[in-house]
Amino acid sequence: MAEMEDEVIANNKQVILKDYVKGFPQESDLPLVSSTVKLKIPGDCHDAVLVRNLYLSCDPYMRNLMNMIESDDPNMYSPGSPIRGYGVSRVVDSSHSNFKKGDLIWGLTGWEEYSLIRNPSSSFKIPDATVPLSYYTGILGMPGMTAYAGFYEICSPKKGEYVFISAASGAVGQLVGQFAKLLGCYVVGSAGSKDKIELLKNKFGFDDAFNYKEEKDLNATLKRYFPEGIDIYFENVGGKMLDAVLLNMRLHGRIAVCGMISQYNLDQPEGVHNLFTLVSKRVRMQGFVVVDYYHLYHKYLDMILPLIKEGKITYVEDIAQGLESGPRALVGLFSGRNVGKQVVALARADDV
Amino acid sequence: MAEMEDEVIANNKQVILKDYVKGFPQESDLPLVSSTVKLKIPGDCHDAVLVRNLYLSCDPYMRNLMNMIESDDPNMYSPGSPIRGYGVSRVVDSSHSNFKKGDLIWGLTGWEEYSLIRNPSSSFKIPDATVPLSYYTGILGMPGMTAYAGFYEICSPKKGEYVFISAASGAVGQLVGQFAKLLGCYVVGSAGSKDKIELLKNKFGFDDAFNYKEEKDLNATLKRYFPEGIDIYFENVGGKMLDAVLLNMRLHGRIAVCGMISQYNLDQPEGVHNLFTLVSKRVRMQGFVVVDYYHLYHKYLDMILPLIKEGKITYVEDIAQGLESGPRALVGLFSGRNVGKQVVALARADDV
Repeated sequence: MAEMEDEVIANNKQVILKDYVKGFPQESDLPLVSSTVKLKIPGDCHDAVLVRNLYLSCDPYMRNLMNMIESDDPNMYSPGSPIRGYGVSRVVDSSHSNFKKGDLIWGLTGWEEYSLIRNPSSSFKIPDATVPLSYYTGILGMPGMTAYAGFYEICSPKKGEYVFISAASGAVGQLVGQFAKLLGCYVVGSAGSKDKIELLKNKFGFDDAFNYKEEKDLNATLKRYFPEGIDIYFENVGGKMLDAVLLNMRLHGRIAVCGMISQYNLDQPEGVHNLFTLVSKRVRMQGFVVVDYYHLYHKYLDMILPLIKEGKITYVEDIAQGLESGPRALVGLFSGRNVGKQVVALARADDV
Repeated sequence: MAEMEDEVIANNKQVILKDYVKGFPQESDLPLVSSTVKLKIPGDCHDAVLVRNLYLSCDPYMRNLMNMIESDDPNMYSPGSPIRGYGVSRVVDSSHSNFKKGDLIWGLTGWEEYSLIRNPSSSFKIPDATVPLSYYTGILGMPGMTAYAGFYEICSPKKGEYVFISAASGAVGQLVGQFAKLLGCYVVGSAGSKDKIELLKNKFGFDDAFNYKEEKDLNATLKRYFPEGIDIYFENVGGKMLDAVLLNMRLHGRIAVCGMISQYNLDQPEGVHNLFTLVSKRVRMQGFVVVDYYHLYHKYLDMILPLIKEGKITYVEDIAQGLESGPRALVGLFSGRNVGKQVVALARADDV
């Protein structure tokens, strides 16, 4: 840190997108570069915050932002610039009336040590710092709200229903399963390793779980785990799993489409063949995006914070240390290397 | 007709399923056979009606009942037996308190001159015979209720929205388009011939229409007809059209899945690749079956009968004469030979 007159300049390591990505992303697509940052918001930059990033969130949707596609989505990544995602941060400087220096916040930020957030409209002040701060990248942040909105607002769940969750040990899936158990549903999850299956059954309290990599015929597998069929499918993976699930839906079933991680690295998504069962079984299949539900965030906190503190909900994180480990952690999502919510820790709140 | 003691025996021509069907059905799959019927309900047959069939309805869903599949659906056809479908009939004998000899009814019946309906729970008495009786196989029957439930109950339509309908000149599509126009939507339909496109634009008042057989790139076609995107897609065909529509849905769009006629004759349905847009555009895609909505039938009649009589809704039928012409009419649905609702006329109400 060098002080010059009124200016403090800090080093600012960044993870940038080297070039648009095709197929599976590699660590080499996300090089670390050095830069510097002035630790003061520029004078013409109103309603902004400058933050020190503490935790960064690795989420599957980030893969889609690495594509070279015609899109009017301003969130798409640009080659040569830092990638962005959800994170937990300490406010260093603020020109926004909702935030002041020292505040802890979560929301969209950059993959770098310091970020200037020009429009913190989707940043939330952290309401309770007695739980692990990293939880605000997971159970208390975007994935938590995703599970909450997806399950309660989209699935129309009822006690006793049969619920299936794919990618069930991930940031969202592990919560959906626990919400469904709390409601009195029968819950089965799929995941891609023995460790994850153990987690689902023993830590998260799923009724059952299976390793999809060990199953040859997913339709037969689902018939085995759901002889009565599936009322609710919480969809995180797409492709062959969705096709098999469609054949096993019950009358008036619901499919909440949260993501399709198995498809993000393919040039062309796999074809799904069994959509006619939407008609024969009168199924509602509905996609959703969490940002449409952030107005429910405080309602969600009122529900979830007591459940965490009473030990009625548990949350498993996979924390990589240091921004340098970020690229490996992020690309690891797509081979299922993480066990639980993948987080990158940059600094401890007490140290900044 | 031969009278023996107390019995009247009538000849009863029938259209039977020769064998389970693979691929496109042929007229030869549906031979005409002769039999006889006693024109009195057997003594042990309670709550039944015996009817003379006047009009039979040709509907795409009937193709699915010709398959050899494991199914618990009691409606599946059996080789050697008459096929069944919706029809308009005159009651010849009744052991059911809701129906008496001479009543005109519509509902499920057999493809034959006379049918014993052992469970007339889905038969409705015809409330108004001042409109063409054949309408009770279409606008005033199952297809009408399908259009009504699909559009108003599933699509959540709003004035000014952009509505696309495939198979738009068919029994259901022509009504959905007119309902949408009455509500103040912008409506485009697709169909498979020049004549049908003329009908859509000039007779049913669609804002625009195109012949899908003349389009090489359905995605580009839809972008041309819907530069702002599609709010509501009323799905009758499936496959490539659905895939192209998915790429053109607007935020919070809705897809009512009524049928997928393009897929019924394929060994394996085509793959649909663009389902991720359900997430990115937050689309609700919902299958439905009309039988779940028959409790709304009288509400529908209150709406539709005045519209018909005031000339605000029009309905085009394609009527084949005689049971002998039934097989050709039915298989013609799958090559799009019919223009408008396909009906088979067996007898006039006044003659029986």
